[in-house]
Amino acid sequence: MIVVMQPETSEERIKEISENLKKRGFSVHLSQGERRTLIGVIGQPQEGLSHSLEAMQGVEKVVPISRPYKLVSREFRPKNSVIELDEGVLIGGDRLVIMAGPCAVEGEEQMLETAQAIKSVGAQILRGGAFKPRTSPYSFQGMKSEGLKILSKIREKTGLLIVTEVMDPYSVEEVACYSDILQVGARNMQNFYLLQEVGKIKKPVLLKRGMSATVEEWLMAAEYIMSEGNYEVILCERGIRTFENYTRNTLDLSAAALAKQFSHLPVIVDPSHGTGRRDIIPAMSKAAVATGVDGLLVEVHPRPEEAFSDGPQSLTPEQFQHLMSELKGVAASVGRNI
Amino acid sequence: MIVVMQPETSEERIKEISENLKKRGFSVHLSQGERRTLIGVIGQPQEGLSHSLEAMQGVEKVVPISRPYKLVSREFRPKNSVIELDEGVLIGGDRLVIMAGPCAVEGEEQMLETAQAIKSVGAQILRGGAFKPRTSPYSFQGMKSEGLKILSKIREKTGLLIVTEVMDPYSVEEVACYSDILQVGARNMQNFYLLQEVGKIKKPVLLKRGMSATVEEWLMAAEYIMSEGNYEVILCERGIRTFENYTRNTLDLSAAALAKQFSHLPVIVDPSHGTGRRDIIPAMSKAAVATGVDGLLVEVHPRPEEAFSDGPQSLTPEQFQHLMSELKGVAASVGRNI
Amino acid sequence: MIVVMQPETSEERIKEISENLKKRGFSVHLSQGERRTLIGVIGQPQEGLSHSLEAMQGVEKVVPISRPYKLVSREFRPKNSVIELDEGVLIGGDRLVIMAGPCAVEGEEQMLETAQAIKSVGAQILRGGAFKPRTSPYSFQGMKSEGLKILSKIREKTGLLIVTEVMDPYSVEEVACYSDILQVGARNMQNFYLLQEVGKIKKPVLLKRGMSATVEEWLMAAEYIMSEGNYEVILCERGIRTFENYTRNTLDLSAAALAKQFSHLPVIVDPSHGTGRRDIIPAMSKAAVATGVDGLLVEVHPRPEEAFSDGPQSLTPEQFQHLMSELKGVAASVGRNI
Amino acid sequence: MIVVMQPETSEERIKEISENLKKRGFSVHLSQGERRTLIGVIGQPQEGLSHSLEAMQGVEKVVPISRPYKLVSREFRPKNSVIELDEGVLIGGDRLVIMAGPCAVEGEEQMLETAQAIKSVGAQILRGGAFKPRTSPYSFQGMKSEGLKILSKIREKTGLLIVTEVMDPYSVEEVACYSDILQVGARNMQNFYLLQEVGKIKKPVLLKRGMSATVEEWLMAAEYIMSEGNYEVILCERGIRTFENYTRNTLDLSAAALAKQFSHLPVIVDPSHGTGRRDIIPAMSKAAVATGVDGLLVEVHPRPEEAFSDGPQSLTPEQFQHLMSELKGVAASVGRNI
Repeated sequence: MIVVMQPETSEERIKEISENLKKRGFSVHLSQGERRTLIGVIGQPQEGLSHSLEAMQGVEKVVPISRPYKLVSREFRPKNSVIELDEGVLIGGDRLVIMAGPCAVEGEEQMLETAQAIKSVGAQILRGGAFKPRTSPYSFQGMKSEGLKILSKIREKTGLLIVTEVMDPYSVEEVACYSDILQVGARNMQNFYLLQEVGKIKKPVLLKRGMSATVEEWLMAAEYIMSEGNYEVILCERGIRTFENYTRNTLDLSAAALAKQFSHLPVIVDPSHGTGRRDIIPAMSKAAVATGVDGLLVEVHPRPEEAFSDGPQSLTPEQFQHLMSELKGVAASVGRNI
Repeated sequence: MIVVMQPETSEERIKEISENLKKRGFSVHLSQGERRTLIGVIGQPQEGLSHSLEAMQGVEKVVPISRPYKLVSREFRPKNSVIELDEGVLIGGDRLVIMAGPCAVEGEEQMLETAQAIKSVGAQILRGGAFKPRTSPYSFQGMKSEGLKILSKIREKTGLLIVTEVMDPYSVEEVACYSDILQVGARNMQNFYLLQEVGKIKKPVLLKRGMSATVEEWLMAAEYIMSEGNYEVILCERGIRTFENYTRNTLDLSAAALAKQFSHLPVIVDPSHGTGRRDIIPAMSKAAVATGVDGLLVEVHPRPEEAFSDGPQSLTPEQFQHLMSELKGVAASVGRNI
Repeated sequence: MIVVMQPETSEERIKEISENLKKRGFSVHLSQGERRTLIGVIGQPQEGLSHSLEAMQGVEKVVPISRPYKLVSREFRPKNSVIELDEGVLIGGDRLVIMAGPCAVEGEEQMLETAQAIKSVGAQILRGGAFKPRTSPYSFQGMKSEGLKILSKIREKTGLLIVTEVMDPYSVEEVACYSDILQVGARNMQNFYLLQEVGKIKKPVLLKRGMSATVEEWLMAAEYIMSEGNYEVILCERGIRTFENYTRNTLDLSAAALAKQFSHLPVIVDPSHGTGRRDIIPAMSKAAVATGVDGLLVEVHPRPEEAFSDGPQSLTPEQFQHLMSELKGVAASVGRNI
Repeated sequence: MIVVMQPETSEERIKEISENLKKRGFSVHLSQGERRTLIGVIGQPQEGLSHSLEAMQGVEKVVPISRPYKLVSREFRPKNSVIELDEGVLIGGDRLVIMAGPCAVEGEEQMLETAQAIKSVGAQILRGGAFKPRTSPYSFQGMKSEGLKILSKIREKTGLLIVTEVMDPYSVEEVACYSDILQVGARNMQNFYLLQEVGKIKKPVLLKRGMSATVEEWLMAAEYIMSEGNYEVILCERGIRTFENYTRNTLDLSAAALAKQFSHLPVIVDPSHGTGRRDIIPAMSKAAVATGVDGLLVEVHPRPEEAFSDGPQSLTPEQFQHLMSELKGVAASVGRNI
């Protein structure tokens, strides 16, 4: 950490700050410029240190040097993490993992139809929300426990694994019981209590990036989960909020590329929420794969016009099948398969 | 709701969609343009209707007409809501309510010193976090239950009321027991489960705007609380995330002005988090009052350089005293007092 | 400038970089941490230095210390600049300057009617666009030279001064000839050629903040004008682009407060473009005045429903009159008059 | 256009507005709902109509139906435009066009070295700025005319075509004389005067998206150029401004995909400015190609650490060569070659 002093701060003041730092156990290196002094602070960062320094008289700014994430970082684990699931499914391996399905579980028939369609073209994991975060309290909030049971039945019948969202700490255990991967949604990315709860279980967690979270905050949210002992975290980029209004969100593939670079965790991309427009989902899916991520999360619905939610961004099974065949070549061109 | 059809859609298709809508119980008005047909849909909006329409072949877009909030809106209650608290404190009345105190409860002495300082110049409510949402799992997470007890003691000694944050559904009851107002933080604005829980209690809730929430989403979050039966919601603008980096957030006073216009609920402004810079907090506090809001939430710390968090945006008691005297005139100029 | 080296960079590499810097005429201070070395670079910053350093192997990042603006800054001129115009009008003095008028000059009658209305309640400067920047090439582009002549006539008849936009370097001379203040619009804030041209004349320039310009870029744009010799620059905040869609732009009053703090130049606020909504212009105008700025730029049109552009954000003369009377008290409360 | 009236507006008011519209030459269709009336307005849109309607009493909002661009749109020209240049270079054909080179022309040797390096691996067009838009007036502004002459010499020696930026209307002719494609930079995307000037010449124009321009505004800027008679416009996505600070800009590939969909014009991507980070340029280049765009604009410098500008985002010739070989497979996977 570097403390940049204001121009012409008295030597006395600088000494006071240096002494204060030494008392807290840091080594201090002064660097005298023409108008300013810099104080280099060496040692293990402490809670709130930067803030209390910035509040001191004479301090212009405090420049952090180290990145705040540890368990998440490539320095902690240089090799890619690969998460092993049932049925031999790997996340983070050479084969891209494709998760597909409707926004919400609406009934057994709808789920079975979708599951068979996506499985037949190579998807390995079925998505479907039983608990739905909705902007309005008057909107359909999901089939809840009943939805979980439907997912479980479909898993049994088809061999597809299940990813589904958990929205509150009370339901973590129940959702974990019926699914293979727990999803933490974008709106809950900094619901720290929920992060800690899913950090205590033994199930992989798919962590969506918050809609205005920086890459650093996203990685720190993963750090929350890992710091509780659950190292199986999958990062999922799903679009950020910008001024653009032709798309629902702005899919930020550079964030996915950076996450792959800074972290050993697997990274996947959700082009459906990331764009909100069926017409560019194929283009953005191919782009995501070319970026080098480990998989996709795609909304597929047998009859989008009857979907309870997110119809405009759902692919039909035919469109999904076409996309899967297009993705094969792109995956191969970056050394992956599908 | 208006359904805008694509140019040159067949009459047959338009008829199909109209029939579909009539079956769902809506009246339908067609409006034939030169190239396009518009379908006006009349009747009570249904869950997911707009989405399923948008997914239909031939539909270009669906334009909602009504605003989605009900209990929150001025149409539901034209007059300003005034929330009555103990000690005769009113929120939403002629007298502006000033909430002040440190970011976090750090100890009894710190809180008592702050409380006496702010009370002596007219603040009525003491803020201080016992549970702290922190970006890093390694940062100070607050004194938790012990912090609540300190707040309660200070309340007894000084007569100041207490506002403090609740972060998870498990703690709602405990926090409600020790405080006069429960705060839902910006990161939890769309933690719908928490919103529902605080909607079930009989304590006012201060709802901070999420850092990238639209005004509509903010009002809908209040609707979640009200739809559970708790009508005592105070809206708090605290800055949004933009590209500007001289400030920690961009304080959006126009959102506060719009919230006052669209809703009967009291609105306050937090210039401390809203700017992150002590040097412009006075200017932005005066601006907020001139906008016509009902109060302020200001960070004050007896020794900002020792604060565990948010030091750079805390006023000293002297600075706060000076601000309070400046605010008197501004309040009077818009027909309020302090 | 501080050069932060990557962890475990070799001493040899650090020496090479230090030597490179010394050859360029800088002094160098090394600060050795546990894992990293920092190089403090002392001396007059040079073109591109930071960039070429960041590109060097072993360098993690380069941290600039000084702010890049000079003539604009309070260090260059600690006292507020006051710009003197004809008719005894001062910008930056105790009396707030109010500029009002329609978006576009549409005809002599419209301008005269507006001018008389605004003058009667205390406005000193008439605004009105003769050259209009429009998103579409098919939209009304302004009355151009004819519009300038109308403005000039109105000036003669009413004694109001004139502010009007200049959009291209060819027209600078002509616009300067017919107006008292030249406006550089938000879309042209980084049209550096235009900035240099208006820097060469002897007329005050009103410089609008670009719709996604940082405060630093805005001040640097003013620096462009001043560096050509024209020190009479008025900064104008007019809203930035964010995700919020209830307003046309998000009026950023904290930027105005910061500009007043960092710079000696007068700062005004445009609540009309800054919000795009007539219903909150009064609230935001009062807020702007309470922030401590030096004036307002407000759209007023005698019959907004006939306006060629920006009708929804124009006040009627009656609404403007009401606003002016409300502003008096707010101005007084912050030590100004109107 | 649909005019949505406020609930319970009088029939008389609705009649007045309808009559007003008919007088202006429009047909009108009323659609009576339970609480609101909608007025469908049919006929050729007129300047400012939507604005003047929105300003009328009783009108809640005006909903535009048609997209505002014409010449740019796929409705005007369903087939992809292909731009033919010298040396048989096509932009928008099956072969991707790669433009590469340094940010700024710094000297003949630097340019020749770069040109030979990029040509040897398949680039067809050399980029290099002679006129440089810089945030600071004190920064290197480019070699100007001398730079143009260097570019021209390199063109002669190597057969590479030239793309270079024009910043002001005065220089359009000169820049056109020395280059094959004129670039309009992001900061000038709404410099309408410059757009009109480059619309009058007979040289292709590369139009960069503004850093906070919506896709619609970007297409409208192209419409400005085309409406003057120059139909050879190449759209270039180069990143937008968001809250993320690990990258210089957020590369918005969905905008590129939408531009391809809505417009017949060729679209290319600049991953160098779009990210500002050399470490993710390869990933984002591959992603761009997979999206289906027609080419790339990449910064390459023989010695990035000596670059006058943009060093951290420049590839070395070796890195560029590696990227080109990687791109071959990705291009093939989407039916293109390189």
